[in-house]
Amino acid sequence: MTFPPLREELRGIAPYGAPQLDVPYALNTNENPYGPSAACVADIAAAVAEAAAGLNRYPDREHLALREGLATYLSRDVAPGQAPIEAAQVWAANGSNEVMLQLLQAFGGPGRTVVSFAPTYSMYPEYARDTHSRFVAGRRADDFTLDLDAAVTLVEAERPSVVLLPSPNNPTGTALAPEAIGALCEAIGDDGLLVVDEAYGEFRRAGTPSALELLLTYRNLVVTRTMSKAFAGAGLRLGYLAADPAICDAIRVVRLPYHLSAVTQAVALAALAHTDELLGAVDALRAERDACVAWLREQGLHVADSDANFCLFGTFADRHAVWQRLLDEGVLVREVGPEGWLRVSIGTPAEMAAFRAAMMVVLEHPGVAGGES
Amino acid sequence: MTFPPLREELRGIAPYGAPQLDVPYALNTNENPYGPSAACVADIAAAVAEAAAGLNRYPDREHLALREGLATYLSRDVAPGQAPIEAAQVWAANGSNEVMLQLLQAFGGPGRTVVSFAPTYSMYPEYARDTHSRFVAGRRADDFTLDLDAAVTLVEAERPSVVLLPSPNNPTGTALAPEAIGALCEAIGDDGLLVVDEAYGEFRRAGTPSALELLLTYRNLVVTRTMSKAFAGAGLRLGYLAADPAICDAIRVVRLPYHLSAVTQAVALAALAHTDELLGAVDALRAERDACVAWLREQGLHVADSDANFCLFGTFADRHAVWQRLLDEGVLVREVGPEGWLRVSIGTPAEMAAFRAAMMVVLEHPGVAGGES
Repeated sequence: MTFPPLREELRGIAPYGAPQLDVPYALNTNENPYGPSAACVADIAAAVAEAAAGLNRYPDREHLALREGLATYLSRDVAPGQAPIEAAQVWAANGSNEVMLQLLQAFGGPGRTVVSFAPTYSMYPEYARDTHSRFVAGRRADDFTLDLDAAVTLVEAERPSVVLLPSPNNPTGTALAPEAIGALCEAIGDDGLLVVDEAYGEFRRAGTPSALELLLTYRNLVVTRTMSKAFAGAGLRLGYLAADPAICDAIRVVRLPYHLSAVTQAVALAALAHTDELLGAVDALRAERDACVAWLREQGLHVADSDANFCLFGTFADRHAVWQRLLDEGVLVREVGPEGWLRVSIGTPAEMAAFRAAMMVVLEHPGVAGGES
Repeated sequence: MTFPPLREELRGIAPYGAPQLDVPYALNTNENPYGPSAACVADIAAAVAEAAAGLNRYPDREHLALREGLATYLSRDVAPGQAPIEAAQVWAANGSNEVMLQLLQAFGGPGRTVVSFAPTYSMYPEYARDTHSRFVAGRRADDFTLDLDAAVTLVEAERPSVVLLPSPNNPTGTALAPEAIGALCEAIGDDGLLVVDEAYGEFRRAGTPSALELLLTYRNLVVTRTMSKAFAGAGLRLGYLAADPAICDAIRVVRLPYHLSAVTQAVALAALAHTDELLGAVDALRAERDACVAWLREQGLHVADSDANFCLFGTFADRHAVWQRLLDEGVLVREVGPEGWLRVSIGTPAEMAAFRAAMMVVLEHPGVAGGES
């Protein structure tokens, strides 16, 4: 065997991740461009100082105080008149990546099937691969929405134990229609879970509800969130889910002991105390996104409707050439999604101006833009 | 199917973990009883404040600065005249739990075998279960040392892709003989890895070398460490390994993107800058351990030789009754290891005095201690 004895299916695979390049305008990983205020940073540092005084002790394995804080936050998005979300319905881990891995360790695995609908988040097949779950990808419609009839048919045929559906979808920005959630939960039944990945949920447009509104209606519904995006905490790595308490309890069997550090718990709690500030840029980012979509369309490009803090635009005969040309102008976007499309994260007004200026350079050189693919 | 649709093999399993009880003397999870100094806490808080200012950005996926810091630290333990350890030989994750999981995701899994030697760390079978690796447990000798001939025979018969061997062993405290490492690495060959888990390595007795001395001799040798124990950072959750750079590189395929937060990287680096202080209690803890071993033997008990910050003692006909009696006296030890034995972590002089006083109560009530099992 070749050394080191890596599993066959992992050989020659490039590790997941966008290029980490030092550029003037990084619009490639859907970060919130606004960092925390000095007051928030000071509170985070004070919380860590308190936790660090007892750093020789293991943290609370059940991270109960944090789960309570997250439950309070999520309760903003339940349906009017519905009971607030409780700590027992919440589970957190180091990024929603780890939440997803834990879900598939507990509910996927050998002999079980995970379904998603492409184009979608490119980590989903990796979670399935790393848990030895069978992965089946249905297709989205040409406008990237979910064809509900086809989705239900696929679910009935494949009997998945987990269905992964982001809303809004990454990298297209497409929100899930509310009626799709109920129909899929019913099609899946008690043999599986529908995981609605709301990593970008806080950026949804007015009138798009959160799947949290349906949490008490469907016990096989799991809604995941992250503090990386709207919450401006990508460096914190804090993902979480809301679900039936029995689901949270089941995950405890596969979670690594003390998976969430005392420091992570302290920082996340301190950040939650600054929720209004940290989410303060969301409205501006949504407006900037809508302006970006409109501007790109004015240039004659296709742009997917977006409920997220990014937009997918195209199409280009040679998207890599466009990506490179934008990079030459100092603007890093993401080469991801269906062939011919690119994804740009929504940044500050200055960053978006730089993006538009760089795009003008691209569009003035038809040889580079290459027209429709 | 019963809801929720947890995998069959996980149903009814209690999540791993010692009871988290609020007691005067917690001597059950092998924590370092000495917390960081005020100066160290201040530096940690300052490092987090710096990291938190950019918390909206993703951390360095490759955590290179931290790997460099850990490599410098580990280089204390290489053989005289040997080259220092380099960042490319180091990989870190959220606790050595996650390091182990990543190792088994990459090198274990379906169709592959993981070998260890019982009694040993009770998470090893869980790592194997959660990665669907076949787990084979050899037996240690009656004094908890490794029977090298039997171990080599088992390895040759089972052809494991990973052998997990703690040195010192948990929960027995037994160090691995240096000649065992070479013999096992040769028996395993290029088809597998020997993982020497040195979570408690810094507590080893004078004359016991680290497996790091053999790192350049055997490319299939992996040495894991943690900042949880000697480094007094259980709340930080920072585990790491040293190995051939090709092994570190292979792990990158299965690691979750951005698995180590910017905050964790900052705190770990700040703690490394205080290495001498944080490790300052190690000598005192080793002396306290040796005294504890001697005292328990004076009471007529069996005590396993220990190179760690805990000792395993017994034997009791009803160890649970002894555990409960100690708890009634305010002293929490761990009910772990072979039937009839208990494990006590080494604490401060005051904590150990409380342990001895509680043990005197137990030993004065033969009905509770119950004699040898």
